Amino acid sequence: MKLHGVFAPIPTPFDDANRVDSGRIAAAFARWLTRPITGFVVLGSNGEAVFLSEDESDRVVAAARQAVPSDRPLIVGTGRESTEATIRASKRAAELGADAVLVRTPAFFKSQMTHDAFVRHYTAVADSSRVPVLLYNFTALTGVNLLPATVAQLASHPNIVGMKESGGDVAQISDLVSSTPAGFAVLAGTTSTFYAALCVGAVGGILAPACVVPESCKRLYDLAKAGRHDEALAMQRRLVPIARLLGPTYGVPGLKAALKIAGYDLGIPRPPLAPVPDAAAALLAAALAQLEEIPA
Amino acid sequence: MKLHGVFAPIPTPFDDANRVDSGRIAAAFARWLTRPITGFVVLGSNGEAVFLSEDESDRVVAAARQAVPSDRPLIVGTGRESTEATIRASKRAAELGADAVLVRTPAFFKSQMTHDAFVRHYTAVADSSRVPVLLYNFTALTGVNLLPATVAQLASHPNIVGMKESGGDVAQISDLVSSTPAGFAVLAGTTSTFYAALCVGAVGGILAPACVVPESCKRLYDLAKAGRHDEALAMQRRLVPIARLLGPTYGVPGLKAALKIAGYDLGIPRPPLAPVPDAAAALLAAALAQLEEIPA
Amino acid sequence: MKLHGVFAPIPTPFDDANRVDSGRIAAAFARWLTRPITGFVVLGSNGEAVFLSEDESDRVVAAARQAVPSDRPLIVGTGRESTEATIRASKRAAELGADAVLVRTPAFFKSQMTHDAFVRHYTAVADSSRVPVLLYNFTALTGVNLLPATVAQLASHPNIVGMKESGGDVAQISDLVSSTPAGFAVLAGTTSTFYAALCVGAVGGILAPACVVPESCKRLYDLAKAGRHDEALAMQRRLVPIARLLGPTYGVPGLKAALKIAGYDLGIPRPPLAPVPDAAAALLAAALAQLEEIPA
Amino acid sequence: MKLHGVFAPIPTPFDDANRVDSGRIAAAFARWLTRPITGFVVLGSNGEAVFLSEDESDRVVAAARQAVPSDRPLIVGTGRESTEATIRASKRAAELGADAVLVRTPAFFKSQMTHDAFVRHYTAVADSSRVPVLLYNFTALTGVNLLPATVAQLASHPNIVGMKESGGDVAQISDLVSSTPAGFAVLAGTTSTFYAALCVGAVGGILAPACVVPESCKRLYDLAKAGRHDEALAMQRRLVPIARLLGPTYGVPGLKAALKIAGYDLGIPRPPLAPVPDAAAALLAAALAQLEEIPA
Repeated sequence: MKLHGVFAPIPTPFDDANRVDSGRIAAAFARWLTRPITGFVVLGSNGEAVFLSEDESDRVVAAARQAVPSDRPLIVGTGRESTEATIRASKRAAELGADAVLVRTPAFFKSQMTHDAFVRHYTAVADSSRVPVLLYNFTALTGVNLLPATVAQLASHPNIVGMKESGGDVAQISDLVSSTPAGFAVLAGTTSTFYAALCVGAVGGILAPACVVPESCKRLYDLAKAGRHDEALAMQRRLVPIARLLGPTYGVPGLKAALKIAGYDLGIPRPPLAPVPDAAAALLAAALAQLEEIPA
Repeated sequence: MKLHGVFAPIPTPFDDANRVDSGRIAAAFARWLTRPITGFVVLGSNGEAVFLSEDESDRVVAAARQAVPSDRPLIVGTGRESTEATIRASKRAAELGADAVLVRTPAFFKSQMTHDAFVRHYTAVADSSRVPVLLYNFTALTGVNLLPATVAQLASHPNIVGMKESGGDVAQISDLVSSTPAGFAVLAGTTSTFYAALCVGAVGGILAPACVVPESCKRLYDLAKAGRHDEALAMQRRLVPIARLLGPTYGVPGLKAALKIAGYDLGIPRPPLAPVPDAAAALLAAALAQLEEIPA
Repeated sequence: MKLHGVFAPIPTPFDDANRVDSGRIAAAFARWLTRPITGFVVLGSNGEAVFLSEDESDRVVAAARQAVPSDRPLIVGTGRESTEATIRASKRAAELGADAVLVRTPAFFKSQMTHDAFVRHYTAVADSSRVPVLLYNFTALTGVNLLPATVAQLASHPNIVGMKESGGDVAQISDLVSSTPAGFAVLAGTTSTFYAALCVGAVGGILAPACVVPESCKRLYDLAKAGRHDEALAMQRRLVPIARLLGPTYGVPGLKAALKIAGYDLGIPRPPLAPVPDAAAALLAAALAQLEEIPA
Repeated sequence: MKLHGVFAPIPTPFDDANRVDSGRIAAAFARWLTRPITGFVVLGSNGEAVFLSEDESDRVVAAARQAVPSDRPLIVGTGRESTEATIRASKRAAELGADAVLVRTPAFFKSQMTHDAFVRHYTAVADSSRVPVLLYNFTALTGVNLLPATVAQLASHPNIVGMKESGGDVAQISDLVSSTPAGFAVLAGTTSTFYAALCVGAVGGILAPACVVPESCKRLYDLAKAGRHDEALAMQRRLVPIARLLGPTYGVPGLKAALKIAGYDLGIPRPPLAPVPDAAAALLAAALAQLEEIPA
């Protein structure tokens, strides 16, 4: 499975009654498949996975797999707080055609989430999963940190093939790369430090802007890989404004609004999230226009 | 419904295969009901609620309701990330006999959890709930803060009758009391600041140690209410060691281990949590022995 | 020396050229001495001590000592980053008539400020000081925390007689009281949790509002000591608005502006601090008016 | 003045009675001048500047200027909490031969250190300084953050020529570069992210390891500038262990101990700092040996 490149962590389309909308999923993938996107992540943070029931989750995976051809990796987020529930979600995802599962750290009982707890959790999940496992660390949302020493130990498991690190701490990304074997894929989750992450050895990214402006993201990736660092840095800087808007400023509602500007129809987020305020649309449109990627 | 006093947030008993164990629930309540506990909270943080499926949650509520007589309030934790799922869980809890629901803040999408988002969420839940709603703020675990200004607004809803504030910031508790109507019940969630919280107007507590040493907790409450402040403070100090062990040090595994020392049989926590290390048992036993409440 | 009660941490008066103004110091003390203030702290955080040279510091101490009669304790802030400089400043303060010195934790090299470093520092200062030493912990400003275990060890030094704890964590204040001998004076530094601190054993406070509304602060203290807890809590709540304005909102500039409203003439703070914006004066006046203590 | 390259922030040598030792300063510079170090910073954080009196500071500057020839930039740390004291220290440094001054943010009154306060402070310092001014942001030590928007405004001042950013947030460094004019020199202060900082446009670094292993630091810089990114990254990784030991782990005491291993004689740090524990020497020696730069 190809893990080098730029992955799009897609939002989950809902219909007007806020139900999972398989039709909108199919329609959106029809467009995404025409873009330079290496692969797709469903049911990640941007997929509002925490709002879906197990049944709804399965429907999203099934619809995505139907849309995505086998030459594009389909990664499914299956992290749950309990080890057992994570194992079950991972099994169902594999049965529904996932190429890999992306397992966010359990995090509710923060003070108990020690090195040993993470090793037990991920080892049990990886032992039982039919498809490869990607670790997923997102400290800003979870309040726990999957440290390089723990990742180094887990990377020796034959079924743990990489990780998504969503933090912007480039020194930690560098440590993750240097403390894991060459084949272990470290993927960046923060667009505003994507170029720096690539410099220190990340092999790709799972980036919200890749849902909307994949060419810009892919071009940054290609320039960095080609050693054209000045151009890569210039591309990185052009991506920062939209990355900020889709990240800390407007989050998932911002991503859905940006995709609407780009012509996608994914509905609005589930409460307690709310559609972005009216003022946001203009900001998003301006940030996207600068990248000259969205058809008028 | 009586909300003044000391409530026990009970852990969920599992059998040896880590399944919800209704028999152990019944047996544990048989003992708890003999103790000076004002009422009970099931499916709170200490109840490992994040590890249970919706079906399992319902079984816990049903078993608890069967055990707890109607003169003792039974409060059920029903917080979910999505508003809709919280509404559904609250309805089921009410149908199963809950006297009130305790609704932890949604928290996953931290930067979007604004004043407006909390108002929308809790208003929708309270509008649709057949039983009264208690707000629940636990910033150390969730990373979001339900501020006094937001609580003040929500307290005007006729179906929102109080809150649990698990933070140790006594100034915030004081603010919550002074910015809400007289009948709004502010309950403390941190044992080590329980006495100070009572001083500034909290009307009770939902305290993990109340599962194990309820007499000590109730005595602290009674002394403070009686204006016997020196004795209350002395009791508070005697409770700090066990409060620390059951809180930040050992968490839910510590609570289950302490209850085992006290003669309860609740099984062990679900992975990724693990039973406490052997060294913990001696520390817990010593801290409990100081309170002279547990039969030898 | 009397350490029980309410102390005023006075700002340093400057003239219009921003030089230490001994005349304004004398004039201000002439009024403060008519108020129910137990004692005074000069060169504390509110005294802009970090902006003064050693010579200027000495002039402030000399002017204050000339103004303050011997029956009111005069405490001088002498904390410096280096142990040697702290010792020298403490010696000079004692020679100029200080009754005690208040020594803020060194804090610049945060990761090196261990238990051992604090013990070495304070022991050396206390060994060499002719007057008693008060420890001073202000984590919000310094980024380091003088923990109860360290204070417990230092409290056994015969020349370390108490401490000022400026944090609002009432559990920590309770720990400080319970882990030190009965004669060790724990003084609160945060007005908004002053009542709760008194409940858990603090013997007094060093409170910015005591410079402006000392009667209200003293009344809160007296009510709490008399066991009139309901009235104390009501008084506490009336003090919160001015405490917030003089603390996190406007800081030292706010204190100087409030004192100007109250008829004191202390000049403005040194740059990079700036006088409060115009809008602040109205807010301060309104908060003060509620306390009905300032002559119109 | 040349600001591109690798600068050594040297520790201040003390004699056995902990006095500033001009002889040791001269002897140390005699060796440093033989190494590939672009220029020197005295009285920075690593120079224990917060422990020195104004007189001692002047002696260090004078001794350093005597040692350092005019073709190597000598930068002097002159940050003080008050604007006036900073101006005076900067003037004296210029008179004693400093090529530039490095001015750390004032930080004591954290909540008052707004954009406007920083603009006022630095503008006043730069207006009055005879030599160019470098801004200096070190959030981990100061608790305040000099944000890119503030730096962007200050960078238009003709006498503010660059800054040292000691944080490891590479996105912030990238923002600083992109929001300031081409000639404004952004220098990194964290060795473990030095390579990533260079990738996003930093023109050099002021790095503690450059005092001990300057060839390794300079080689990393040269490789990055030459576009030999794979080799630069490999060099970066070899520098991480010593960077960690000289940074968060052992700080200034670690730097003095490492220099002792390398044959320098700088004495020990001032209390409350203490020499490193015995165990540290072996760790430092091992980390240095890996770099094969220190003569046996």
